[in-house]
Amino acid sequence: MAPSPVVRTYPLSSYSFDTKMEKHKSIINPITRLDSIYKTEGIRRIVEGILLVHEHNHPYILLLKVGTAFYKLPGGKLEAGESEINGLKRKLSSKLGPDPPSPQPDWQIGECVGVWWRTNFETSAVYPYCPPHRTKPRECRKQFVVQLPEREYFVVPKNLQLVSVPFYQLYDNAQKFGHVIASIPEQLSRFQFNTIDE
Amino acid sequence: MAPSPVVRTYPLSSYSFDTKMEKHKSIINPITRLDSIYKTEGIRRIVEGILLVHEHNHPYILLLKVGTAFYKLPGGKLEAGESEINGLKRKLSSKLGPDPPSPQPDWQIGECVGVWWRTNFETSAVYPYCPPHRTKPRECRKQFVVQLPEREYFVVPKNLQLVSVPFYQLYDNAQKFGHVIASIPEQLSRFQFNTIDE
Repeated sequence: MAPSPVVRTYPLSSYSFDTKMEKHKSIINPITRLDSIYKTEGIRRIVEGILLVHEHNHPYILLLKVGTAFYKLPGGKLEAGESEINGLKRKLSSKLGPDPPSPQPDWQIGECVGVWWRTNFETSAVYPYCPPHRTKPRECRKQFVVQLPEREYFVVPKNLQLVSVPFYQLYDNAQKFGHVIASIPEQLSRFQFNTIDE
Repeated sequence: MAPSPVVRTYPLSSYSFDTKMEKHKSIINPITRLDSIYKTEGIRRIVEGILLVHEHNHPYILLLKVGTAFYKLPGGKLEAGESEINGLKRKLSSKLGPDPPSPQPDWQIGECVGVWWRTNFETSAVYPYCPPHRTKPRECRKQFVVQLPEREYFVVPKNLQLVSVPFYQLYDNAQKFGHVIASIPEQLSRFQFNTIDE
């Protein structure tokens, strides 16, 4: 039997934070945009990073908070032909790294722990399996564990807030965080957390 | 990056089923019994098997139904000093194998996909992490993927019913199946299912 996968976690206080200008945002209606992209590019591939810290030996994940009540994992859409790992590194730098030409964090992308499917863009419904009788899913979202180093410098766009949320708040709380984020404690339950204090 | 783990699934119709006499059951109050076992043996270790089949390319798991509304994974409690793999094989044979001296199925135990903790025996609450400020969890439940062969002969105790339930019924349905079983679709979302038809 394979041993449990291990993630090292450091306290939130190990990391430093700064802000940067927000990126230019598209002003086209999102659903229209998603539908038109699907027609030209096919399935939309999203990759997201699970960045872990700890407080009092309990695991927390870093989430981007948009406005007052919407949470998302750092990540985004892959370009055509782009690999998952390269795309996730690019997106993590765009969301959490300093502006170029400053050197970017050396993102250590670990294993994929979750895969979710979306079959249309009119609802936010996602499924942890390719729904039966749906031969053409519109979107596939994958979550990867990211091993953070002992120290890091995160730079967050001004329109977003980086927050750390404990597993005990995420668990069984799809209403607040959505199914993808709320199920991370279950998906990581097989991991061994090596909590390292300063 | 590691490739997705693979499970081969065969149609339910590949397998044959029979029944056997039910095992002698303890008549002591379960909570009193659990508390007294904890005092003498320490943490209770439960191992459970996830046995997969498919219908129309959609994954199903095999569950034991007790009475009209209670579902459980095949498995049970490890003996003191017993390994997880050996204990799970023993429990799978006890729940799903023919009575000795008939040869038992050659259970192929795969990776652990879920770990759940229970901190007291008065409630059925389980958590996919060791709850903070609880230094002494009472029970640890682990779920393992079991790779079924192309053919198998299952023999089920008369007081239980073996049922196959599709992922789309399990997902987001903790009310009916409990959190451990309902979260299996999320925990297996990263797997690639090789659905093999007859």
